[in-house]
Amino acid sequence: MKRLKLLILLAKKGAIGEKVKITLRELANELGVSPQSVLRLLDEMEEEGLISKDVKGRKTYVEISQGGLAFLENLCDAISEVLYNGIIIGEVISGIGEGAYYVRQYSHLIREYLGFDPYPGTLNVRVLFPRTVFDALCGVRPVVLPGFAKDGRTFGDVKAYRVRIGDVEGAIVIPSRTVHPPRIAEIIAPVCLREELSLEDGSRITIRVVK
Amino acid sequence: MKRLKLLILLAKKGAIGEKVKITLRELANELGVSPQSVLRLLDEMEEEGLISKDVKGRKTYVEISQGGLAFLENLCDAISEVLYNGIIIGEVISGIGEGAYYVRQYSHLIREYLGFDPYPGTLNVRVLFPRTVFDALCGVRPVVLPGFAKDGRTFGDVKAYRVRIGDVEGAIVIPSRTVHPPRIAEIIAPVCLREELSLEDGSRITIRVVK
Repeated sequence: MKRLKLLILLAKKGAIGEKVKITLRELANELGVSPQSVLRLLDEMEEEGLISKDVKGRKTYVEISQGGLAFLENLCDAISEVLYNGIIIGEVISGIGEGAYYVRQYSHLIREYLGFDPYPGTLNVRVLFPRTVFDALCGVRPVVLPGFAKDGRTFGDVKAYRVRIGDVEGAIVIPSRTVHPPRIAEIIAPVCLREELSLEDGSRITIRVVK
Repeated sequence: MKRLKLLILLAKKGAIGEKVKITLRELANELGVSPQSVLRLLDEMEEEGLISKDVKGRKTYVEISQGGLAFLENLCDAISEVLYNGIIIGEVISGIGEGAYYVRQYSHLIREYLGFDPYPGTLNVRVLFPRTVFDALCGVRPVVLPGFAKDGRTFGDVKAYRVRIGDVEGAIVIPSRTVHPPRIAEIIAPVCLREELSLEDGSRITIRVVK
């Protein structure tokens, strides 16, 4: 991890696209190692093609090479790929009871577009991982329940993402107008998820996005 | 790096949101280390709160903990933050000569919106880092040169991003209709960049996005 930390530190200091002057002592302090260790790390990293280094008199200039930049880009891609793979971890919380009302209003659309009769209520889950629901749903195409008007009220489009919790299939529903990535996932299903899966407030659950 | 590789490998094997069965030999093979090293790494990582581990008889089950997931998320964020920081590295190439024509058509708008009289031509740069121009421009607000009609032809909106190359200020111009992230950056400036900066085909340059 030391090399990786040093590489990130060099990037932070502007060593991308140009050589920047560095001092071993400063880098050593920031990494919590000795200046000698930094020097050795820099030498190794130069040998591996991660950086290039120029020593002019008492001054050392360092730039992250194309190889080093590719290493960082690939690492970042590899992590996002395994992390944001349609899995959401969350904690069951109590809603404010609005869910039931809305599920009833949209129930004909849920039947038509998702193919099940929804239990009249939603399971509210505070998302623990990833940071927001959208990180996990990124790249997944939602089923859009089209908005409608009824009794002088307007009901907007709702995006539904099919998910599985244990053996139960349901859907995360998000009003299309939502701008801020929700920290709470609202889930509908053909059954009462709390009863079916013996959940209570604070229960930890894993939600799998069905792609 | 061994721990990080092991953590990514565990994520790839599905150890997010549930415990998965692992075998030391398999992990060892994939990491190119001994099964004993894997065992020691797993023990250390458990102590550090990155994973949790269950041994049932001869079977071992592992799950990446919340701490481990946060570690991966933070690392990925830290890398993107330093990497995609408005710096583009590229290689000068020859255009097909269309640039001059378009610069002339838009020159009144360039003067009005960007404040300079453009040299009639563009510098074409094949982007080496990051993967696409858009990765570097992500989060930067462009100046939009509005489209217009002239002599029976239509000229679309063009997005311009102010940049600096050496001491020269100019702009990367991208037609708004472009869908695919461009691998080639077209740059306009008040001067002939090739002459001003003594560039020729193959010259490596660093472009800084002005935010």
